Amino acid sequence: MSKVFVNIGLSLDGYMAPEGMTMDNPEVKNWGAKWGALMAWLLRQQYFREKLKFGPGGETGPVNDMVRHTMERTGANIMGKRMFEQGEATWPEEAPFHTPVYVLTHDKREPWVRPGGTTFHFINDGPERALQLAREAAGHRDIRISGGADVIQQYLNLGVVDELEIALAPVLFGGGRRLFENLSEPGPQFRIDRVLHGPAATHLRYVRQ
Amino acid sequence: MSKVFVNIGLSLDGYMAPEGMTMDNPEVKNWGAKWGALMAWLLRQQYFREKLKFGPGGETGPVNDMVRHTMERTGANIMGKRMFEQGEATWPEEAPFHTPVYVLTHDKREPWVRPGGTTFHFINDGPERALQLAREAAGHRDIRISGGADVIQQYLNLGVVDELEIALAPVLFGGGRRLFENLSEPGPQFRIDRVLHGPAATHLRYVRQ
Repeated sequence: MSKVFVNIGLSLDGYMAPEGMTMDNPEVKNWGAKWGALMAWLLRQQYFREKLKFGPGGETGPVNDMVRHTMERTGANIMGKRMFEQGEATWPEEAPFHTPVYVLTHDKREPWVRPGGTTFHFINDGPERALQLAREAAGHRDIRISGGADVIQQYLNLGVVDELEIALAPVLFGGGRRLFENLSEPGPQFRIDRVLHGPAATHLRYVRQ
Repeated sequence: MSKVFVNIGLSLDGYMAPEGMTMDNPEVKNWGAKWGALMAWLLRQQYFREKLKFGPGGETGPVNDMVRHTMERTGANIMGKRMFEQGEATWPEEAPFHTPVYVLTHDKREPWVRPGGTTFHFINDGPERALQLAREAAGHRDIRISGGADVIQQYLNLGVVDELEIALAPVLFGGGRRLFENLSEPGPQFRIDRVLHGPAATHLRYVRQ
């Protein structure tokens, strides 16, 4: 059966996004530099550079293979309303998912078809319904809980996250959106599955026990 | 010159101690099991077992070497009042530090000499004064900021922590005392120095940039 997975970057102090992060003001609490430090490892990978047309070159190796595998394994994405709205304003016309994307929202809206295989579906019936639809769409491929933090927390609390992949970057944000909050008791149980090294992030992979 | 270092266990969700952790009630929010999961890696190490008279056997290897090195390098400890008070009630007569220990507190109290080389000094003049005294006492050895979280935060904000060693355990506490809070802007800057693997913790070592 399809796996449900999370694959995110995290600051050493546990934030997915720095405080003040809005596209219209990159100077607030220096969020641009913080975000850059969080994502530095990814921008170096050959597969990512190729996909985003950043030019030739880049690292190859286990981290690059992991980035490629993450993209190739994904048959459907689930995201929150805020992540969608931020992306709607900034993604290129060919949105970077190339799968059905289920957006958790109270807004009623027809599916939004983008070139390149991304179609956004707006789900008003909660995270379990979105997961059901994502499973049907993903076929033998896997389902990525893309974010934000609140959506990941909802799926952690449902106990359905099979794999938690974290690129832990050596940067302190000092504030922002925490990944791990609002977890119910008892929380989900994970074991360490694999750790990959890099100079700009440590790639931690946990699987559900 | 002596290094100032932190060496702690941390839950995957960023807590140094689970919520409800008091010796008189191990059942509150299941803190005993959570604490056990956090410390499982340490209880397996040969050096730790020998020092605490847990009996023969135990793991040898790079993690065990790290535990020994942490003890041997330490020439002075600094801790907060709450950590001291919890320990005062639970440490054996031969307190497990074997160095001078500087306790940040508003209480005035004469030094408390324990068998085995541990003497507690009660410092009323703030963290910088405690660090100065610890440096003088440590000689060529290093100074460990033992905890709790609030004391580590104070030294992070002073910009004097040279090395941050974290044993990240795959357990979610869901609440408790967070390591990374109350950091000032801009925060201290670290780079990844070394990562050691283990089945029950990932040993992350960061050094100040």
